[in-house]
Amino acid sequence: MNRRLRMGMIGGGAGAFIGPVHRFAAELDREIELVAGVFSSDAGRSLASAADYKIDPARAYPDLATMFASEAKREDGIDFVTIASPNHHHLPAARAALAAGVAVMSDKPMTASLAEARELAELIAQAGRPYALTYTYSGYPLVREARARVAAGAIGTVRKVVVEYRQGWLAGAADGKQAEWRVDPARAGAGGCIGDIGVHAFQLAEFVTGLKVTRLLADLAAVVPGRALDDDCSILLRFENGARGVLLASQIEVGELNGLRIRIYGDQGGLVWRQETPNELILHRIDGGTEIVRAGTAQIGPDAQARTRTPGGHPEGYLEAFANLYRDFAAVLRGAAAPLLPGIADGLRSMAFVETAVTASRDDAGWVDLIGEGATQ
Amino acid sequence: MNRRLRMGMIGGGAGAFIGPVHRFAAELDREIELVAGVFSSDAGRSLASAADYKIDPARAYPDLATMFASEAKREDGIDFVTIASPNHHHLPAARAALAAGVAVMSDKPMTASLAEARELAELIAQAGRPYALTYTYSGYPLVREARARVAAGAIGTVRKVVVEYRQGWLAGAADGKQAEWRVDPARAGAGGCIGDIGVHAFQLAEFVTGLKVTRLLADLAAVVPGRALDDDCSILLRFENGARGVLLASQIEVGELNGLRIRIYGDQGGLVWRQETPNELILHRIDGGTEIVRAGTAQIGPDAQARTRTPGGHPEGYLEAFANLYRDFAAVLRGAAAPLLPGIADGLRSMAFVETAVTASRDDAGWVDLIGEGATQ
Amino acid sequence: MNRRLRMGMIGGGAGAFIGPVHRFAAELDREIELVAGVFSSDAGRSLASAADYKIDPARAYPDLATMFASEAKREDGIDFVTIASPNHHHLPAARAALAAGVAVMSDKPMTASLAEARELAELIAQAGRPYALTYTYSGYPLVREARARVAAGAIGTVRKVVVEYRQGWLAGAADGKQAEWRVDPARAGAGGCIGDIGVHAFQLAEFVTGLKVTRLLADLAAVVPGRALDDDCSILLRFENGARGVLLASQIEVGELNGLRIRIYGDQGGLVWRQETPNELILHRIDGGTEIVRAGTAQIGPDAQARTRTPGGHPEGYLEAFANLYRDFAAVLRGAAAPLLPGIADGLRSMAFVETAVTASRDDAGWVDLIGEGATQ
Amino acid sequence: MNRRLRMGMIGGGAGAFIGPVHRFAAELDREIELVAGVFSSDAGRSLASAADYKIDPARAYPDLATMFASEAKREDGIDFVTIASPNHHHLPAARAALAAGVAVMSDKPMTASLAEARELAELIAQAGRPYALTYTYSGYPLVREARARVAAGAIGTVRKVVVEYRQGWLAGAADGKQAEWRVDPARAGAGGCIGDIGVHAFQLAEFVTGLKVTRLLADLAAVVPGRALDDDCSILLRFENGARGVLLASQIEVGELNGLRIRIYGDQGGLVWRQETPNELILHRIDGGTEIVRAGTAQIGPDAQARTRTPGGHPEGYLEAFANLYRDFAAVLRGAAAPLLPGIADGLRSMAFVETAVTASRDDAGWVDLIGEGATQ
Repeated sequence: MNRRLRMGMIGGGAGAFIGPVHRFAAELDREIELVAGVFSSDAGRSLASAADYKIDPARAYPDLATMFASEAKREDGIDFVTIASPNHHHLPAARAALAAGVAVMSDKPMTASLAEARELAELIAQAGRPYALTYTYSGYPLVREARARVAAGAIGTVRKVVVEYRQGWLAGAADGKQAEWRVDPARAGAGGCIGDIGVHAFQLAEFVTGLKVTRLLADLAAVVPGRALDDDCSILLRFENGARGVLLASQIEVGELNGLRIRIYGDQGGLVWRQETPNELILHRIDGGTEIVRAGTAQIGPDAQARTRTPGGHPEGYLEAFANLYRDFAAVLRGAAAPLLPGIADGLRSMAFVETAVTASRDDAGWVDLIGEGATQ
Repeated sequence: MNRRLRMGMIGGGAGAFIGPVHRFAAELDREIELVAGVFSSDAGRSLASAADYKIDPARAYPDLATMFASEAKREDGIDFVTIASPNHHHLPAARAALAAGVAVMSDKPMTASLAEARELAELIAQAGRPYALTYTYSGYPLVREARARVAAGAIGTVRKVVVEYRQGWLAGAADGKQAEWRVDPARAGAGGCIGDIGVHAFQLAEFVTGLKVTRLLADLAAVVPGRALDDDCSILLRFENGARGVLLASQIEVGELNGLRIRIYGDQGGLVWRQETPNELILHRIDGGTEIVRAGTAQIGPDAQARTRTPGGHPEGYLEAFANLYRDFAAVLRGAAAPLLPGIADGLRSMAFVETAVTASRDDAGWVDLIGEGATQ
Repeated sequence: MNRRLRMGMIGGGAGAFIGPVHRFAAELDREIELVAGVFSSDAGRSLASAADYKIDPARAYPDLATMFASEAKREDGIDFVTIASPNHHHLPAARAALAAGVAVMSDKPMTASLAEARELAELIAQAGRPYALTYTYSGYPLVREARARVAAGAIGTVRKVVVEYRQGWLAGAADGKQAEWRVDPARAGAGGCIGDIGVHAFQLAEFVTGLKVTRLLADLAAVVPGRALDDDCSILLRFENGARGVLLASQIEVGELNGLRIRIYGDQGGLVWRQETPNELILHRIDGGTEIVRAGTAQIGPDAQARTRTPGGHPEGYLEAFANLYRDFAAVLRGAAAPLLPGIADGLRSMAFVETAVTASRDDAGWVDLIGEGATQ
Repeated sequence: MNRRLRMGMIGGGAGAFIGPVHRFAAELDREIELVAGVFSSDAGRSLASAADYKIDPARAYPDLATMFASEAKREDGIDFVTIASPNHHHLPAARAALAAGVAVMSDKPMTASLAEARELAELIAQAGRPYALTYTYSGYPLVREARARVAAGAIGTVRKVVVEYRQGWLAGAADGKQAEWRVDPARAGAGGCIGDIGVHAFQLAEFVTGLKVTRLLADLAAVVPGRALDDDCSILLRFENGARGVLLASQIEVGELNGLRIRIYGDQGGLVWRQETPNELILHRIDGGTEIVRAGTAQIGPDAQARTRTPGGHPEGYLEAFANLYRDFAAVLRGAAAPLLPGIADGLRSMAFVETAVTASRDDAGWVDLIGEGATQ
């Protein structure tokens, strides 16, 4: 199957940030093209999005049922859907796709609750169709490099992880389409900041270290007056090997834009990566030496090198990282393996993380096992 | 004309860096799609590139004549070509396109010599078809912002410009497809480093200041033993308003990747932009205050904002900057204006810059008028 | 009293890091000179230090009693002592000085335990002699500037504080004079990392915000096998106005040198200072603007300006910050006020912090009131 | 001679920036103490400075003759003088000191002209007393480290040097004591910016590379209207081994504080040091690797290590660098060698540099030999 894979989009209509990002990312490598979608739950707005996306208006559908039915009849029907709608739509959208035999690429979090996630995991297992989650940051070449270096022992045994995701855009009133649903429990789920960005930090920490979080202590709060969901999260972690962790996520830190950063310290070295300067990795050795590992140089291993599109010094960023996930997903659809592509396991773990943290914080429960981990589960 | 514009590519086949970049950039906004090409002067390699680019093999042509003839017969024939071949091909490729009534987007430099550039300028004028040049760096949102700020008087009257373009990849032997032609006068033209990257620095300086360079003093050298073309350039500049300038370009500075940086100082402030951290601009005021202007914040003016695709903190880079030029070019093809899109004037001035500098350096001529400027021209 | 003030030193003999630092700092402004000392509990080593410090060997005393007795008899006897010995010496040294009517400048922490600190506080009150603590980081000009900006409302109401103190030098075995006593409960007290550097972070957070910590949740651990005292601390904080805080201190983060950093976020802005680049302050405004406030520019307020010794761009660092505390202390000895000089209150609060955190962590007590704060005290 | 060496100061009275800096630097290591001075050509102001410096008023002399005569009669008379007055005083002050048999530490430049410098060099030779120049930046530990690394072949054969010294404080009118004399040819000499800061850049380039500049091409200008001396300098260099160089110095770059930076590229690597972040050195290898060499780590060689006073991460800066020169000078006075301490040769070369550049620029002479270098000398 050498043709371009055909993507339908669910959500992502006018005013959305993430819809166009999915389109850019999916199409960047010419493996995939956007051909159809239900871009909004409002049929008129879905239709209007056809022009924005420059697709055939006949394929901008009013609802999921119509899309899956219509596309199934076409010879050139969609191969998969991308789910870019708010969190509470993730389960019904994925369910409809899987029922239609269509593969699914979904925005994180997997669903609006852990129970939903478990339900979806079963549906996926039954359907036997590819399913992946856009934990975008794991698509950055130097995140892959960091993972490879840790796995190769560059910093020795991991002892300490500090992962932060700092934003400030919800420090004031949550106006605008991007903000509104994120602070509404009915649409976002039980987690606010933790579900929106905390899960990215969580997934990144497990991804780079190759270690699972087993316990946590969570302190979540809604700092902005009147807010129903958390907008500031401080969480202490323990990893399966005993390593200590700190996960900080906030959306009220004025001036922070998208400050995802991870520091990992082992008994032989340390490693630092920052999303806002994504093309370099700092590597400390216990002998006092410090190396800047830069994208596009001969210092980069093959996995990260293959996910870099330009020579060193030509900055690549968020869209390219996102596109790396779609490249992996396209490979899967074509029958290849993409072991680092986030999927069901990441989804379930992230939802368990959110649910554990939200519950533990609400109950002021101190240290608790991550749901699904620990002797008591 | 709401359909996607159809692009043919000239050059950019297997092993090329810049071909895929053109494709990414052209298609990013879904205004354009790559449908055809003569990807190599070797017919077999051109055909082989069809698979890489996922286009119809029937449209991977063996030569320009065949492409233009065949495409002209199609209802869905190409709207324009992108020229991504080495410098000495630029003129013949553009000539063939214009003769076929096809618009042209071309890699810089415009041609291999100023005489060729002048010839091409006339052809373009006669053909009346859109023509643009991928001076990529002028596509960065914060370069647009910098230009707007200077124009609005943020730093007062410009007094001093320092523009640097630092690379180190040609510090050793020039191996590999990317390097070989760049150090060969028959393919690159009379300028080596100056034609490859010096012109970017020159265009950027004129673009951001809105001022023309009128005189220069050039010191070019081939530092690596056995090299025929310059790989290190130090050039002093004078601008039309009397402002002083320094342009440094080098390809032998080990460790520098793609270090294009510009600093502009006026009587009221200063401004710094660096391509390797492109999403911020430093703005100094004469009162001692210093501001970091960051992409995606409310501090950014409308022109730059419109060329940013993601919220602040989601790094955008080289491909997105490149895509901004294609977006402008698509607008022109659709009949709109895009006054900041580099074109003939930039091309001619850059070629005059190269020719002036190469000649002046060879003759150790001291300060000379830029060809086309000054009383003696 | 226009003469230079005369300082005696306790501890700080050969091999110590902090002894010479006290000497540099005390003498920098020529307000003070080192003239005497008990540089070691070993009389021979104390005497040997006279040469290192270039003081009269007759004034390098074998013990405290001899020093205070001998100096009291001199016309040019010491005006104050600096205590630079390990923590468990702080109380006896200060007691001896106060008994001799001599003022005291002491290394932090105030003592080895809170009980000792309270005892010392009473002795100071009785003695009526000046007493100050070298919480060095509060001496940095831009820390003073940060405090002034927060107080003036630059970031609005403080909501969130993240203060980190990252080091890596104890990631391996704790060899050498500097390391040994710090990991020994008999000499360091109940806190390891928390008493050595955590208290600096605590004091800095209260100093810059002007807010008191009232509650905390502590997770301390000895990460390096075999270590008796904590070397890694994660502590959640609540401030008196309800603001949330995170305090991270570690001595096992390989590659971190002396990474003290503070971020403070309010409802109108944010502020960042990093000790390793101490001459700038980042100030974020809620309108998306970001300013770099640089030492030595006209943007700096009078208090910070007065504590800067060179023009902007001439880096000042740790010794100058330390010297600013001595300048304040000299002012106090001469009868002036120095309201920002850390003293008894900072000492007591820091000891309460250590004791609360060590106890709460050991008992896994969750959130607890800071000893001395809260309704239950 | 284990006693502290006794320093007299010439110039450096009230309002001066550099006088107190000399005092801080001289006394930091307790090798030296300031005891006397002619702090101003105005006797009353000289006397008034005694209080500022806390020295015996009887030793704040009205003129040089009185100082040298009076001090010669004392048992505890001065061992050397520091010359901190404007450039045109350097020769007469040094002459008087040498005539009195007193050693000299002098501000750069050596004198106000090359002819004067040659006269002084002869006087020094005759007097046989130590003489040194405060080319402060060569006292930074990581500048010493850079020199040692280059000498050890870390970057291979030097091919290219870019040294910049950027300031902005003279972008407006030159008000205030610091500025006035620097723009006055009668006091500063023939060079403005070039004599004030350009010589630092020149000395640094020769110091770190270990190579002599043999030819140059200079373009100096007075950018600010009405200014008599240059305030902006662009100079191309050739080194004795054929390496190419660029030296940029400016005092009109608004927002630049004290931006001295050097980049050196060889055939095997590259090296970058910046005065404003002086505690790290960037080292590029031709294999694409980049190392950050940080002060106070085990990566630092013995010479730089010995000039660092605190552990890594405790920023040291300008005063400590300056003090390193005084430490070397004290060693020389005590009979030891200090081969890296700048002295007569640096002074003569710098003056030749200024004179060559000023003359060549005025005459628009193109490439010229550095006076004293080349076949024609």
